[in-house]
Amino acid sequence: MSTVATDTPGPQTLMVRPEDCPDFAAGAAILGTGGGGDPHIGMLMAQAALDKHGPADLVKLEDVPDDAVVLPIAMMGAPTVMVEKLASAEQFVESIRSIAKYLGVEPTHIACMEAGGVNSMIPMAAAAELGLPLIDADGMGRAFPELQMVLATLCGVQAAPMSISDEKGNSIVLETVSNKWAERLARTATVEMGCSTIVSLYAMTGAQVKNAFVPGTLSLCRELGACISYSRHHAGSAKDAVISRLGAVQIAEGKISDVERRTTSGFARGRAELTTAEGTVEIEFQNENLLVRRGGDVVATTPDLIIGLDTDTGEAVTTEQLRFGTRISLIVSPADERWHSAGGLELAGPRYFGYDTDPVRPVEFRR
Amino acid sequence: MSTVATDTPGPQTLMVRPEDCPDFAAGAAILGTGGGGDPHIGMLMAQAALDKHGPADLVKLEDVPDDAVVLPIAMMGAPTVMVEKLASAEQFVESIRSIAKYLGVEPTHIACMEAGGVNSMIPMAAAAELGLPLIDADGMGRAFPELQMVLATLCGVQAAPMSISDEKGNSIVLETVSNKWAERLARTATVEMGCSTIVSLYAMTGAQVKNAFVPGTLSLCRELGACISYSRHHAGSAKDAVISRLGAVQIAEGKISDVERRTTSGFARGRAELTTAEGTVEIEFQNENLLVRRGGDVVATTPDLIIGLDTDTGEAVTTEQLRFGTRISLIVSPADERWHSAGGLELAGPRYFGYDTDPVRPVEFRR
Repeated sequence: MSTVATDTPGPQTLMVRPEDCPDFAAGAAILGTGGGGDPHIGMLMAQAALDKHGPADLVKLEDVPDDAVVLPIAMMGAPTVMVEKLASAEQFVESIRSIAKYLGVEPTHIACMEAGGVNSMIPMAAAAELGLPLIDADGMGRAFPELQMVLATLCGVQAAPMSISDEKGNSIVLETVSNKWAERLARTATVEMGCSTIVSLYAMTGAQVKNAFVPGTLSLCRELGACISYSRHHAGSAKDAVISRLGAVQIAEGKISDVERRTTSGFARGRAELTTAEGTVEIEFQNENLLVRRGGDVVATTPDLIIGLDTDTGEAVTTEQLRFGTRISLIVSPADERWHSAGGLELAGPRYFGYDTDPVRPVEFRR
Repeated sequence: MSTVATDTPGPQTLMVRPEDCPDFAAGAAILGTGGGGDPHIGMLMAQAALDKHGPADLVKLEDVPDDAVVLPIAMMGAPTVMVEKLASAEQFVESIRSIAKYLGVEPTHIACMEAGGVNSMIPMAAAAELGLPLIDADGMGRAFPELQMVLATLCGVQAAPMSISDEKGNSIVLETVSNKWAERLARTATVEMGCSTIVSLYAMTGAQVKNAFVPGTLSLCRELGACISYSRHHAGSAKDAVISRLGAVQIAEGKISDVERRTTSGFARGRAELTTAEGTVEIEFQNENLLVRRGGDVVATTPDLIIGLDTDTGEAVTTEQLRFGTRISLIVSPADERWHSAGGLELAGPRYFGYDTDPVRPVEFRR
């Protein structure tokens, strides 16, 4: 719990208050690149916990002590299911307690493995519930569909021991030989448990987190959210403000004319067709947007952030929300440079997802 | 490890020596009712451990102290796969240590959850490796395909916390809300881990084991095995000796004329057709033999033990070994009476397996 009273003037960026949740969630949905779960659901879960327990401290990555005991928490599964099966605050607490007990440690900080509507917000709820500070950073600087797809994997940090728990009261602790095996076993367990679970994984020291995380992600989420909420009451385009804050480029604008989706192997997979003045653009996704084609040519790919914004409001449109007639501005934001290393591309580049192409970046990002 | 030297005259029934393994395995395969894994593989694993570490003590169920810490161990998965992917002694030790560490206990006894070619023998290997005594009993008095199908479930004992480990080095600890959920989660994990794992589950006190186990199962296995090995060098039918020792009845004798099998959801499922002088008999199995039909009429069902014996040698024929031309004597042996209670039938009666029939018992067992 925060030691700073909510009415004390002070650095607002150093705490998460209930009233900040809408901005955090709106920004997190943008970095979620179509996945990461429903921002509204994530916001409600965080707000409920912060309302009950008071604000959570938000600690800059550089200020985390090297010997901190950092326990990240996330929701795993298909976003299609997450929106219908809310996790409870007890599940967050149980998940962290279960892995802490297994490891024989006392956690000092909660962390966020991915940016996204739900997975940026659940750590806030957990931090509030547990009275622990939250680190202003995340494990990838975006959302990705599989759990080994974090910069921590590149740094040699093990996902396991990891805990998995469901809303019925079942829980699992995994010890695995690789992060890819953690993904395989956690995914099949999650599917069997009903396609949505709470996981705690990548337990790290402060020193490891400083090496493996993307700094400032949660502050960035709030700023992106503020771009949107500010524009609601003032002149100026929210979408342009978001693009500018991200250093992103717009690659298409139009209306969704077709969506195919299926929930298989615990993922929401599919493709969407965007009809623009310059022709048809295709977006492929697996929870997150992964690749964009125009006239058969690949024009953008993972690991860069491929984001659909509502053209009018600047708000993120998740792959779950895509439907015929939605007006979308498709933008691409540069991923953390570590994702463009050989190891990063092996983990989450287009070939990993089965696309026979090297990564394609907008000309503005090429050096 | 046994404190009795192997050359000391003494009660042979109170220890498991490498040279006893063939009889134990042959008898266990009989109680395995077609499942429980390949007896030869089970024998080799137990023999190797007993050769290396010396004999294991076999303790009568009634002699187990009430405050004993009993950890059962078993192999989970499809027998089709078990015979191709041997478990190592390290896996047994790791499995027991992992659950003991999780529970914060020091095991005093190893136990056997089911009778069967592999699952009666693995506890012997584990007991030898760990230098712990083995209890002369098992959790069902036969083999069954799902892990909640033990008398312990009827007594309210929880399967979880349970450990699951594979040969690659991955391991899992489950905490579940019911034994049925333990089965569901362990089964999907086992399938993902390659259809064969080592599990430790139903950790119990001595008092609980005395209530929930079938006494004397391992001694019975050895006696049944001795019936077979004795007949090899002496006059008399091994098959008749086995039938007599079990109090079983023969319901058919003939040649296998057809076998259908498929490995689905981690089980070996199928049916076999036995051509006899009196017509065709059908055997349905899911790892274990579950139901027998003659001319469309059900003549025997689970929970009684439906056992195929090689007519010439009296040895058990597992469902894996069934093939065109095998000469089989099909016998039925009465299950522990607790399996015929309402709760027992709900767990493992014919309706649980999807057969629209009450249990059918040979007339000799009816009262």
